[in-house]
Amino acid sequence: MDFSIKTLGECRFRSPILDNYPHLESAFIDENKRVRLNVIVDVNNPEEEEPTLEIAGQRRKLYFNPPYTRAAIVTCGGLCPGLNDVIRSIVMESHYHYGVTSIMGIRYGYNGLKEGSPYAPVELTPDKVKDIHKIGGTILGSSRGGTDNINSLVDSLEKMGINILYTIGGDGTLTGAHEIASIAEKRGLPLSVIGIPKTIDNDINFIQKSFGFETAFSKAVEAISGAHVEANGAPNGVGLVKLMGRHSGFIASYASLAMNDVNFILVPEQPFDLDPPNGLLFHLENYLIKRKHAVICVAEGAGQEHMVSAKGNTERDKSGNIRLNDIGVYIKERITSYFRDREMEVNVKYIDPSYLIRSEPACPNDSLFCGLLGQYAVHAGMAGKTDMIVGMINDTYIHVPIKAAVTGRKTIDVTSQFWNNVLQATGQPGNMKNS
Amino acid sequence: MDFSIKTLGECRFRSPILDNYPHLESAFIDENKRVRLNVIVDVNNPEEEEPTLEIAGQRRKLYFNPPYTRAAIVTCGGLCPGLNDVIRSIVMESHYHYGVTSIMGIRYGYNGLKEGSPYAPVELTPDKVKDIHKIGGTILGSSRGGTDNINSLVDSLEKMGINILYTIGGDGTLTGAHEIASIAEKRGLPLSVIGIPKTIDNDINFIQKSFGFETAFSKAVEAISGAHVEANGAPNGVGLVKLMGRHSGFIASYASLAMNDVNFILVPEQPFDLDPPNGLLFHLENYLIKRKHAVICVAEGAGQEHMVSAKGNTERDKSGNIRLNDIGVYIKERITSYFRDREMEVNVKYIDPSYLIRSEPACPNDSLFCGLLGQYAVHAGMAGKTDMIVGMINDTYIHVPIKAAVTGRKTIDVTSQFWNNVLQATGQPGNMKNS
Amino acid sequence: MDFSIKTLGECRFRSPILDNYPHLESAFIDENKRVRLNVIVDVNNPEEEEPTLEIAGQRRKLYFNPPYTRAAIVTCGGLCPGLNDVIRSIVMESHYHYGVTSIMGIRYGYNGLKEGSPYAPVELTPDKVKDIHKIGGTILGSSRGGTDNINSLVDSLEKMGINILYTIGGDGTLTGAHEIASIAEKRGLPLSVIGIPKTIDNDINFIQKSFGFETAFSKAVEAISGAHVEANGAPNGVGLVKLMGRHSGFIASYASLAMNDVNFILVPEQPFDLDPPNGLLFHLENYLIKRKHAVICVAEGAGQEHMVSAKGNTERDKSGNIRLNDIGVYIKERITSYFRDREMEVNVKYIDPSYLIRSEPACPNDSLFCGLLGQYAVHAGMAGKTDMIVGMINDTYIHVPIKAAVTGRKTIDVTSQFWNNVLQATGQPGNMKNS
Amino acid sequence: MDFSIKTLGECRFRSPILDNYPHLESAFIDENKRVRLNVIVDVNNPEEEEPTLEIAGQRRKLYFNPPYTRAAIVTCGGLCPGLNDVIRSIVMESHYHYGVTSIMGIRYGYNGLKEGSPYAPVELTPDKVKDIHKIGGTILGSSRGGTDNINSLVDSLEKMGINILYTIGGDGTLTGAHEIASIAEKRGLPLSVIGIPKTIDNDINFIQKSFGFETAFSKAVEAISGAHVEANGAPNGVGLVKLMGRHSGFIASYASLAMNDVNFILVPEQPFDLDPPNGLLFHLENYLIKRKHAVICVAEGAGQEHMVSAKGNTERDKSGNIRLNDIGVYIKERITSYFRDREMEVNVKYIDPSYLIRSEPACPNDSLFCGLLGQYAVHAGMAGKTDMIVGMINDTYIHVPIKAAVTGRKTIDVTSQFWNNVLQATGQPGNMKNS
Repeated sequence: MDFSIKTLGECRFRSPILDNYPHLESAFIDENKRVRLNVIVDVNNPEEEEPTLEIAGQRRKLYFNPPYTRAAIVTCGGLCPGLNDVIRSIVMESHYHYGVTSIMGIRYGYNGLKEGSPYAPVELTPDKVKDIHKIGGTILGSSRGGTDNINSLVDSLEKMGINILYTIGGDGTLTGAHEIASIAEKRGLPLSVIGIPKTIDNDINFIQKSFGFETAFSKAVEAISGAHVEANGAPNGVGLVKLMGRHSGFIASYASLAMNDVNFILVPEQPFDLDPPNGLLFHLENYLIKRKHAVICVAEGAGQEHMVSAKGNTERDKSGNIRLNDIGVYIKERITSYFRDREMEVNVKYIDPSYLIRSEPACPNDSLFCGLLGQYAVHAGMAGKTDMIVGMINDTYIHVPIKAAVTGRKTIDVTSQFWNNVLQATGQPGNMKNS
Repeated sequence: MDFSIKTLGECRFRSPILDNYPHLESAFIDENKRVRLNVIVDVNNPEEEEPTLEIAGQRRKLYFNPPYTRAAIVTCGGLCPGLNDVIRSIVMESHYHYGVTSIMGIRYGYNGLKEGSPYAPVELTPDKVKDIHKIGGTILGSSRGGTDNINSLVDSLEKMGINILYTIGGDGTLTGAHEIASIAEKRGLPLSVIGIPKTIDNDINFIQKSFGFETAFSKAVEAISGAHVEANGAPNGVGLVKLMGRHSGFIASYASLAMNDVNFILVPEQPFDLDPPNGLLFHLENYLIKRKHAVICVAEGAGQEHMVSAKGNTERDKSGNIRLNDIGVYIKERITSYFRDREMEVNVKYIDPSYLIRSEPACPNDSLFCGLLGQYAVHAGMAGKTDMIVGMINDTYIHVPIKAAVTGRKTIDVTSQFWNNVLQATGQPGNMKNS
Repeated sequence: MDFSIKTLGECRFRSPILDNYPHLESAFIDENKRVRLNVIVDVNNPEEEEPTLEIAGQRRKLYFNPPYTRAAIVTCGGLCPGLNDVIRSIVMESHYHYGVTSIMGIRYGYNGLKEGSPYAPVELTPDKVKDIHKIGGTILGSSRGGTDNINSLVDSLEKMGINILYTIGGDGTLTGAHEIASIAEKRGLPLSVIGIPKTIDNDINFIQKSFGFETAFSKAVEAISGAHVEANGAPNGVGLVKLMGRHSGFIASYASLAMNDVNFILVPEQPFDLDPPNGLLFHLENYLIKRKHAVICVAEGAGQEHMVSAKGNTERDKSGNIRLNDIGVYIKERITSYFRDREMEVNVKYIDPSYLIRSEPACPNDSLFCGLLGQYAVHAGMAGKTDMIVGMINDTYIHVPIKAAVTGRKTIDVTSQFWNNVLQATGQPGNMKNS
Repeated sequence: MDFSIKTLGECRFRSPILDNYPHLESAFIDENKRVRLNVIVDVNNPEEEEPTLEIAGQRRKLYFNPPYTRAAIVTCGGLCPGLNDVIRSIVMESHYHYGVTSIMGIRYGYNGLKEGSPYAPVELTPDKVKDIHKIGGTILGSSRGGTDNINSLVDSLEKMGINILYTIGGDGTLTGAHEIASIAEKRGLPLSVIGIPKTIDNDINFIQKSFGFETAFSKAVEAISGAHVEANGAPNGVGLVKLMGRHSGFIASYASLAMNDVNFILVPEQPFDLDPPNGLLFHLENYLIKRKHAVICVAEGAGQEHMVSAKGNTERDKSGNIRLNDIGVYIKERITSYFRDREMEVNVKYIDPSYLIRSEPACPNDSLFCGLLGQYAVHAGMAGKTDMIVGMINDTYIHVPIKAAVTGRKTIDVTSQFWNNVLQATGQPGNMKNS
């Protein structure tokens, strides 16, 4: 895979940070240093050529001349904790440390860039953003889609004279960002496109963790805790929690590891059966007989194979995501009917915290993380890098080409030690398939 | 209405508290003092005879001889914050201050008292309950119903030799408690039945506030806050929150007053229309045009008249409550179709926090309140009072006969200053009926 | 005591609220209805004449003509949770429901009203205040004192053309407000002075609870919880928490009732000794021998008699409060030396949460309470009432003349049932005096 | 540096986990795989031999035969969030996955192992530990010191027949653990000593983060937030917060990055002056003139050079730590006198959250981290590894020999990009030295 980062051209301007923090010369990035992709080596069999990634951070020389630089920020897709922190950090870093004072906020995602959008961009100033990290959501608003006519988006950027576009969003948004960068390159526009990957599900490739993920699973812990209380409060109580996770069960897994009250966790990566002799319902029955209550945590993308959609499961939302059937409601109904058939009293309490999780303000660790991602995004943009995202790998901030980042999705490897840790924490059978 | 409290007979035993706190003699209740039901007087037209209530608190003389007294606690109906606090307080007060050491916990509501229940009562000790107030729910478990054969419940109590039954539950539970007390009286059993009214909806008559209510509306504030963030995050975003409140909109109203982000509140006490010229959807449309986002808070019992149930709305759960149709889902769908017809983009985000609210541990003020209710319940029980509840009115702890407490439900008076306060806080029209 | 409320003159203007909520005519106050001060009656010996108080709420007729009315808000003294909620509510109610759009915010207490203050008043608008209730403190700033020249304050108010002064503060502030009202009356100024009493200690006369108090004791619960953890974490661990309460131990008592981990509570109202045979240290020693750890909660005003100040205890701060010696540090040292003398290992962990408590944003119940106090203050001001405060008694909102409110301080009656409840919750001896 | 891990001998027992999770064979550790210490490479100048570390995780073969294995857990030094999580995890993993049912909890640190300790060890069972992660502190209690006679500690372990000692503590504790392992080796005892490094300051070498650190700085954010509210609430308000950090300013730095309200941060790694022309007080004065309020965050170990101790700064506590002078109180006094001299009103509000931070229960991310550290510690112990700690580096769990871990302390490199990030977030001068 190609991990080299594109740049707009030669960096000719001296960074003003060099003057403001002269004794911190050593804090600027040495381009000869790179970050290894893999930290684990086979001592008997070391690889010859190992992939490395570019280190994020401030550069001595800038491509853009700060006083004449104009930036824009856009937030796309569903809400995620920390969006406002990232916006705030980009504005503060640009303004106070580079002297870039013209920063436009695009309203409601890429749609706000379209010709004829009813929502005009807003000027973002330090005064306007200084307290926004204390509330959830995004002050810019967000929306799905808007990528049907990338050329028109580039037209708008060109008209507004934008030099750096900071685009915060998921897969679809980043693919759009890549196309914007490509078209800008063809047109010869001095436009740097810097992505800050946003996925509450933590499923971006080559990225150790995505912002907002920790806040999300931390908040999910509350739902599990409530389910546990409810399960204890009724005869054969079953607390059932549905959490986010379309393609990966990271939120469900992390929340379960953090609050050890989950007895069964279901994720998209691990198919399962429901019926005896080895399905979930069978194991649930045994568990209830022994322990009188149980907590089940299911990721929204799990067990989709159990449900036959009238629409053949191909309906999509504006981001192009297939609309999922509701596995939480489905399992609730299956539990109810299974135990009704067996004339065993069971009380299922179903909790779907949904928007309560993604609308949270960032927890302190996420707030810090978003603040640094914002700083690094600005460093990259000012240096004229483009078609890339900022992220973290092996605990180090790095640059990844958008193309590499969107080649696939990170999912839980169910043969890994991590999944083994999860299973040991819940105590559930390693396998709930009938064959 | 008759507010006199029944007692089992003459109080012959000196309270041990008199010996332990000799200088606090003045803290014992003077039976000549009573609490006014009404604090508001018409100066031109004072009433002749005004109803008064018995003051809660410790008595100098006890009916039961502590070392030979045996108590039981039962929790019934849905979960409510503070249940464990009440249980803890009853055990601690009985044990440490009266020397009553035999306290049984009945499992899973009245059903746990039935002949042949698979769930045996548990012994409750200070050591077992000392930390339970830090978690939500009830360590005893709860369930609905169990009142179909009151005689058999009294049989069990008689067999176990219970002298004081502390019963924590709502309307149905209290009616059952009244019947238990009546049957015990007929049988000549020395059984005191003390109710601690539990209604997360705060709708018990003659009771200023019920325990858990504050925790519930405080937690509901989080859902409203999340809805507000979501509403701001999308073009014409509408955050819609459904809260508890079958017959009364207190939780919705208090939460709305506490977090001033609600624009429309719908409660069972105030009927409303949806369609133009004066219905909710019409006013919502105008509001969105002006403000671009809106938050709606609906109590679960509101607007039931809009939905025609296949079952004619008469299906009941085990507590005898009519099953409500889901007004939250209904309004969500009506908003969606209304604006689709008008080709106006609207993004509805629906939040149903449900069990997340009732499974919370008590907030400090509720914890304190539950602790005192428990102490007062024990004082009443030890003095041989029966067929009564402990509660608070005019900021004073009192005793109310169960019969008086269950004669009706407290609801919001929509001609009152309180409702006026709510309307001024949301800013919604005083009336959303078409005629 | 005289509970009659002064008014500026005849109310000639029809309330605009009458037109906006026509069907809520019944929500306006009937001046013939009043609130009893006492809810407890002696049935054998009823009093002839009982004091009553004026009910707070909106009036049909106003003294001030809204479009020509100009209001000001000032916050004085130490911070208290809920200040911003009150400010917000006054602005919102004035603006949206009365149409009063000119509202000035005085900076940093009465000092900001002084001739030559470097801090100019700020215009307060709905847009400026809409989110301020989500943060602690006061957006206006506050300060102590400033009451040395009341005439000059009235001069400023006159120059600014202020008709209603909303003054939020404690004893000293209210006394100042009373003087402002008196001077204004003498000068014949149409100035209504409405106080919203602020005392985090909850010690205002004739007021059931003061705003911010619940938030304060709820936050204090965290400190007690931390002290409990520390006490458990070391051999003979003693967690010692100092809480606010100069003259009254309400915060300490309520926090102890809410979180049942306190073993000894010390308040200003109840003197205590330290040494054997019956002092705190003696009882602490016995408790440690038995239980291995203990938690002590001390109000800052407790036990002042134990400390001899070099300055004879007469130094005062700008609000005129005597500077207290630090009883927390004193007790910590006494415990340490007592057990060192006895060669008994004891580990004292001292927690002084101080500003962490008063800087909290209001909890939901306080937020609601502040919102209503603000609404009621505006109703009173618009009706031309003056020299009064809004408050709550017997769970009903009322008006109290400032003079009556500042005649004395509310303290814990240590012969009352309430104090008895506290002692039963901690389990400490009723009396820790040696004679 | 030598990163090889000692083992007690040949592993002869098959791990029972292999049987319980047969399809997860791949989740067992391949000893040929190791983790690189350094992830950053110089592409022009790659190193020949790079240090690698052993990967943590479950092994196929065990040294100890589970049914005959006896473990002990000890917690030492000051409290730290997550201690109970680690204890819980060790017990659960040992019990449920290895079948090791004999686990002793040593009371109050190494002192509880001493001959004649009044505190007998307690048996730890799943039932006893299942909910302990929900409260702060350590159920075992802790204490400093106890390492003066290591031989006697080994005597006790030998008498109790302990095979694996899990020791949770800081520098001194780990050094003690190393000595225990050495003596056990000399005596030929089959004793595995596994350390889980505990340092709330996050200053252990070769360890990316220590447990409890995130909870600590997250809680510290509240103190900074309170200081910010107080600073805004008074004329020229200065909020001053003292945070933990004897030798390193990580808590102060992370908290400041997470909550962007800090204007000046002072850490032990960066000396500073106070007076003009370039000291803190001078810059504070300028900042106040411009902005009217300021927040200062100081780590307890900062600026010690400014204070001359009567005892020459050499007094030590039982852990051997030099007692620090109180830099928070010192700076508070210097600010007060500096501005008094200049007749400029300044209001300093000093917050020292101290024990409130370390007594917190672990935040979800720390809870998860502690759970995994506990699992990995058990895997290591069962495989007979010894004289080592479990930790994380480059986002991967690893083993480090105790000797390597205690060779030095991790501190902030004030020439690094990280410190640069902190300075850019606060906006303070890069250097506040006069020469």
